[in-house]
Amino acid sequence: MSDFKQADHKLLVIPGPIEFSDQVLLSNATPGTAHTSPAFIPVFGESLKLLRKVLLSKEESGSQPILIAGSGTLGWDAVGVNLIERGDKAVVLNTGYFGDSFAECLEIYGAEVTQVKAEVGNIPEDSAVIKALESKPKVITITHVDTSTGVLSPAKHFAELVKKHSPETLIVLDAVCSVASEEIQFDDWGLDVVISATQKGLGVPPGLSVVLASKRAVEVSENRKTPPQGYYISWKKWIPIMRNYEAGKPSYFATPPVQLIYALNTGLKAMLEKPIQETFEAHKAASKYVKDQLTEIGLGFVPKSRDIAANGMTAVRFPQGVTAPDVLPKLAEKNIVVAAGLHKAIVTEYFRIGHMGVTATNRQRGDLEKVINGVKDVLGKN
Amino acid sequence: MSDFKQADHKLLVIPGPIEFSDQVLLSNATPGTAHTSPAFIPVFGESLKLLRKVLLSKEESGSQPILIAGSGTLGWDAVGVNLIERGDKAVVLNTGYFGDSFAECLEIYGAEVTQVKAEVGNIPEDSAVIKALESKPKVITITHVDTSTGVLSPAKHFAELVKKHSPETLIVLDAVCSVASEEIQFDDWGLDVVISATQKGLGVPPGLSVVLASKRAVEVSENRKTPPQGYYISWKKWIPIMRNYEAGKPSYFATPPVQLIYALNTGLKAMLEKPIQETFEAHKAASKYVKDQLTEIGLGFVPKSRDIAANGMTAVRFPQGVTAPDVLPKLAEKNIVVAAGLHKAIVTEYFRIGHMGVTATNRQRGDLEKVINGVKDVLGKN
Repeated sequence: MSDFKQADHKLLVIPGPIEFSDQVLLSNATPGTAHTSPAFIPVFGESLKLLRKVLLSKEESGSQPILIAGSGTLGWDAVGVNLIERGDKAVVLNTGYFGDSFAECLEIYGAEVTQVKAEVGNIPEDSAVIKALESKPKVITITHVDTSTGVLSPAKHFAELVKKHSPETLIVLDAVCSVASEEIQFDDWGLDVVISATQKGLGVPPGLSVVLASKRAVEVSENRKTPPQGYYISWKKWIPIMRNYEAGKPSYFATPPVQLIYALNTGLKAMLEKPIQETFEAHKAASKYVKDQLTEIGLGFVPKSRDIAANGMTAVRFPQGVTAPDVLPKLAEKNIVVAAGLHKAIVTEYFRIGHMGVTATNRQRGDLEKVINGVKDVLGKN
Repeated sequence: MSDFKQADHKLLVIPGPIEFSDQVLLSNATPGTAHTSPAFIPVFGESLKLLRKVLLSKEESGSQPILIAGSGTLGWDAVGVNLIERGDKAVVLNTGYFGDSFAECLEIYGAEVTQVKAEVGNIPEDSAVIKALESKPKVITITHVDTSTGVLSPAKHFAELVKKHSPETLIVLDAVCSVASEEIQFDDWGLDVVISATQKGLGVPPGLSVVLASKRAVEVSENRKTPPQGYYISWKKWIPIMRNYEAGKPSYFATPPVQLIYALNTGLKAMLEKPIQETFEAHKAASKYVKDQLTEIGLGFVPKSRDIAANGMTAVRFPQGVTAPDVLPKLAEKNIVVAAGLHKAIVTEYFRIGHMGVTATNRQRGDLEKVINGVKDVLGKN
């Protein structure tokens, strides 16, 4: 399948999109197939079931996977459209750029948002979270991994705080950059909504919004006093469709991205050939390798400590006197694509390396050695 | 590239998704590529420019193409989010299922909708359109081809009525099932918004919402009194991004569906190797062949007359005593996939054949002969 490897392809090690397996890419080239055909329906249905497995949620829990054409960002609107009614209180735990944006999105749908902001590179303090919960918000959002800082929020721990201090509050995990690269126990942690996208830990081209909603979240959306605040991402429209696909029945609301769902199906099946814990462990090992190697040459990281650093990416501080133009174009010349900084407060001070999907789970590819060697070369540390 | 042709692939001749060329499918398998990379930016930028050419709009007109991950349906929400403010009047010219749904969508965003409904198989009468325009609506919507009836609305003629009777009204063409298969002269007809998707006349897998907005429509969205009613499809967010891509500059709001945009680029370039009029003519010729052949064996159509029948699809009435289960499964056995009825009022009385994209433009494939022979066989008319 070397057809797919363009001569000028550069190793893509940003925090998404990532490198995709040839099998996934081939599935994305599936010939024209009807969205309501007997060929496609079981593929879609199975993908919904497999998604629950990646997120450690049992079908009996009543959790509802929802796959719609869109970017990860569409998941924020899905929360606003389906769970927020004008005047509802929401708390946003903010660990970077993506917290700011999620808050802005919820405000458009009429939420009164309280942000609990962490210092750059840190997570919110428990006391501040507990204080914000005093207002008994309808929704709390946690950015699992904020790709602008590489900070990993302790989702399980924050969920426990919510269960203790405001048990009615729906827990929304923005897991765009964490599904499959970080452990998520949807049922055991009592999460209500996980929103994600395909082009990161799931290892599938971008264009699919991935959502898992708890039975409780679905019920809240069903029992709204006012109608959903949008049409295309109304769960009222989509949930019957998803249930039909899962039950093997044809159903139509809007045309799903058939090829992307074939690709997702291929990616999920490959991932679940092994226990999902092995995928989490592979990302931890990849992260440790990258961070150890960079520490050895004297580099530091944006997250304050290793225990709040993502396993699917690394936000690396430049050495004194070095900036992005000294590093990124030179890596590109070596056919290695890393990402520039994104968080405004420190934008010139760091860069970002992604290590998700096949780059982390198929170490024989040598992607990590290539990027580490490239960084060492460019910084004169080899 | 016979890899892509699954052994069990069936000829897909529904009103979308359609058959895709191998070149388009191969582009959809482009390896992981950064959405902000020097490789991808010109591909996205060029695709925006080519889209204007398909719709016969000049860059100097100030028209703004917008490509976002999503289904065609997302375009309805884009109109609601960006152009409608609560209490605005909207007129929906209704020629079937998709008019009903567009009206429902606009109402969610607070539009006061007046529907001008045609009889099934017909188009609205001029007098009714003119009467509806007396309210000086902010927006009028025309379903160019309603795939539930196969009716082709005379978009140019209706646009002229609007220009004469309510020139301030923004003209929105739902062209999901007409871009590239029916002539659309965006600038000359004075259209304000064309909304579409990729999986029909454009011949690219589903998952991309395609919009072209006039300078006037962009200005209306910029001069809203209230904020846009959504986040993910806010033109305020996306237009600067699209302008940057077109200018060759990296830019980020949400991750675009990189592979689909490569596929679209390939599809548009292939289409525009010839004057776009040739593509319209090919669809007319395909449509004439299908309709003539079916007329010859005594079949009738849902549209009242040929001049209001789509060129990219045909809605065929079953002969007396025949229903879908007598036809569709038997065609499927011959590896031919046509579509069942969709319009509730006549759902059991007809079926639908799509003839868009390579099926119409590459007649050497023999797709049309295959479907016509299949229908004749199944009905005992061969």
